[in-house]
Amino acid sequence: MKKLLLTAFEPFAGEIINPSLEAARVMKNVSFPEAQLDILELPVDRFLAIEVTLNRLREEKPDVVIMLGEGSRRFRINPERVAINVDDFRIPDNAGNQPKGEPIIAGAPAAYFSTLPIYEIVERIQKAKIPASISNTAGTYLCNRIFYSVMHFIAVEQMKTQAGFIHLPYIHEQTIDKPIDFPSLSLTDAIEAVRLAIESSLLGIK
Amino acid sequence: MKKLLLTAFEPFAGEIINPSLEAARVMKNVSFPEAQLDILELPVDRFLAIEVTLNRLREEKPDVVIMLGEGSRRFRINPERVAINVDDFRIPDNAGNQPKGEPIIAGAPAAYFSTLPIYEIVERIQKAKIPASISNTAGTYLCNRIFYSVMHFIAVEQMKTQAGFIHLPYIHEQTIDKPIDFPSLSLTDAIEAVRLAIESSLLGIK
Amino acid sequence: MKKLLLTAFEPFAGEIINPSLEAARVMKNVSFPEAQLDILELPVDRFLAIEVTLNRLREEKPDVVIMLGEGSRRFRINPERVAINVDDFRIPDNAGNQPKGEPIIAGAPAAYFSTLPIYEIVERIQKAKIPASISNTAGTYLCNRIFYSVMHFIAVEQMKTQAGFIHLPYIHEQTIDKPIDFPSLSLTDAIEAVRLAIESSLLGIK
Amino acid sequence: MKKLLLTAFEPFAGEIINPSLEAARVMKNVSFPEAQLDILELPVDRFLAIEVTLNRLREEKPDVVIMLGEGSRRFRINPERVAINVDDFRIPDNAGNQPKGEPIIAGAPAAYFSTLPIYEIVERIQKAKIPASISNTAGTYLCNRIFYSVMHFIAVEQMKTQAGFIHLPYIHEQTIDKPIDFPSLSLTDAIEAVRLAIESSLLGIK
Repeated sequence: MKKLLLTAFEPFAGEIINPSLEAARVMKNVSFPEAQLDILELPVDRFLAIEVTLNRLREEKPDVVIMLGEGSRRFRINPERVAINVDDFRIPDNAGNQPKGEPIIAGAPAAYFSTLPIYEIVERIQKAKIPASISNTAGTYLCNRIFYSVMHFIAVEQMKTQAGFIHLPYIHEQTIDKPIDFPSLSLTDAIEAVRLAIESSLLGIK
Repeated sequence: MKKLLLTAFEPFAGEIINPSLEAARVMKNVSFPEAQLDILELPVDRFLAIEVTLNRLREEKPDVVIMLGEGSRRFRINPERVAINVDDFRIPDNAGNQPKGEPIIAGAPAAYFSTLPIYEIVERIQKAKIPASISNTAGTYLCNRIFYSVMHFIAVEQMKTQAGFIHLPYIHEQTIDKPIDFPSLSLTDAIEAVRLAIESSLLGIK
Repeated sequence: MKKLLLTAFEPFAGEIINPSLEAARVMKNVSFPEAQLDILELPVDRFLAIEVTLNRLREEKPDVVIMLGEGSRRFRINPERVAINVDDFRIPDNAGNQPKGEPIIAGAPAAYFSTLPIYEIVERIQKAKIPASISNTAGTYLCNRIFYSVMHFIAVEQMKTQAGFIHLPYIHEQTIDKPIDFPSLSLTDAIEAVRLAIESSLLGIK
Repeated sequence: MKKLLLTAFEPFAGEIINPSLEAARVMKNVSFPEAQLDILELPVDRFLAIEVTLNRLREEKPDVVIMLGEGSRRFRINPERVAINVDDFRIPDNAGNQPKGEPIIAGAPAAYFSTLPIYEIVERIQKAKIPASISNTAGTYLCNRIFYSVMHFIAVEQMKTQAGFIHLPYIHEQTIDKPIDFPSLSLTDAIEAVRLAIESSLLGIK
């Protein structure tokens, strides 16, 4: 039995929905034969989000960590390729923090690559006729920050955990009332894509 | 029992799918209690498409005509507000025609407004959490041409038929392999939106 | 000596610049050998803008009217093809008016085509290496409203005036501080495009 | 007297212009009081481009290296923040190479940050009313490859050279005939932005 930690964020930036949270909650009721899912809902607070997540990693030592987040203006399900060592927030987080161009961890490596099977995840989601592609930037906000922090923790602690981040576009509920066009997916598609990403990641573990 | 004519186009511009055709074909199996649906599949040929459609109007005298077409780069289900009297094709149609800036019907009015309940259609589709908005241009290709031609025929023949055009975005099947981002909807959403547009249009008839 | 009326709007929607006004004001100092320019700065007030413009038309009987406006999210200089008989404001005008789906003039034609040489204008601007293309919708806000009102006035009064509307993208000054990407042109390019559009329109008069 | 190496690429992907080359060539005629410019035109060949550039670094030991490249679909002048250790070409280079997901240098660090003053460069260009912002991905094509290779070389050789990459949007000449909208800048703006980036980078050297 594999242990998989799935994280998602609460809404932010004036939204009342975060597609990552909607999709993650549904995963509680999905059965993955060979895995036990632990779902963690994170605050959009640059310090607290990291603390909560690293504590869980320390305690549970999961085999896989899939971090989910909202990518406004994304067109596709985007497994992220790389996390970089910088915080540069365009808007404050929900706790009011807004670092501008600081390293996440001074003296630590510039970047870590995702250790999830990102090419296989994209292929599996595309086969289900849901738009997906690899993204080369997770931005410089909380999504990148938690992604970087988890990868660095795994490296420093010499854990075998495979981990990575996946950005989800807005879901239709978020774009319907907006006066201008935004790309979005149906909630049904977002949920199915997360399920497929989990399946694909579990296949990847030895 | 009301008679509703639903038209859709074959694929064009190198696509092997036309979302209007996919959605229209499914409507054959959908029951609309108070209406009889007649579904017409049109060639992307500026002359033949009009001939076939006007013949059907003449023979069947439908109460409602809903014309469907593909709107690449559209983000939302777009009921069109207005048809204008011009053909200006950016690419040739499937028969090789490519008029540049000609009137569709010389001496006829500059434009006709849709007589479908476009605000109600948008509202009904949005309530189902599918992105929709009114569009103010149907372009100057075949979609606008058939829309204009039908509205002009109804006016000249003094028919009571309510008619209009709805553009559908690409469906995911069309965008998955494209190297760059295109907006798209799931086929499920496209089908449901067309069903709701029909329902809403039928409610609008006295 | 030909008389040319050039109109432009004040800033709106929170902007402190309107590129149409910036470009129009510069035209005061540009010499057009065969024409006398009259430049009219208009309030973003759906009633006052029309009143002021039609009064000027009545008094001055210009040979050409070129109406300029800002098209946020436009990528190119856009001579408009057609004005439609509808007011449907997404945001209020500067006087607080926000009509939703009303005709501009009840019982009047659905639309009027521009009588400016729009293909020639586009070609002339493109030759100067400034992006330009014909637009098929002037929207349903004040730009379309003044365009429609002027075309209808000319038709009703049986004037020989050639008239039309040109949308200008944002200029860089407006987009530099915006946190997300917007298309924009340099003010230099916007000014040159307006100068070329005037030149081209004057050539078109018999 | 400081030595500055400026690199630019030849056209690719069917284009006949590369804005980086247009801008770099003009710099030959621009005077930078405290610096001597060396301008290197690179082939879009993943092996040759690197070989030529690293040879020049070895021979000339410049104080600053500014690498320029074309970023189609970019809206702004984009100093890049980070180079990552991956080649994943969406299209072949001009020599037909198309690696898919390979490390640039096996066993080397995941990434290097730009050592140019990217915040200052952006601010200086914005003050000149030209759109600019920091980009968090240089992609996974030749632009990222040369950027990564140069940064790694500087690190391994323990050089003091400050280096980084700047993506330029298309220039208008490239977008005017394209049937769909692409963001672009005037050549004048692109040239001025490169001049300002050089100025700003030279100020940054101790």
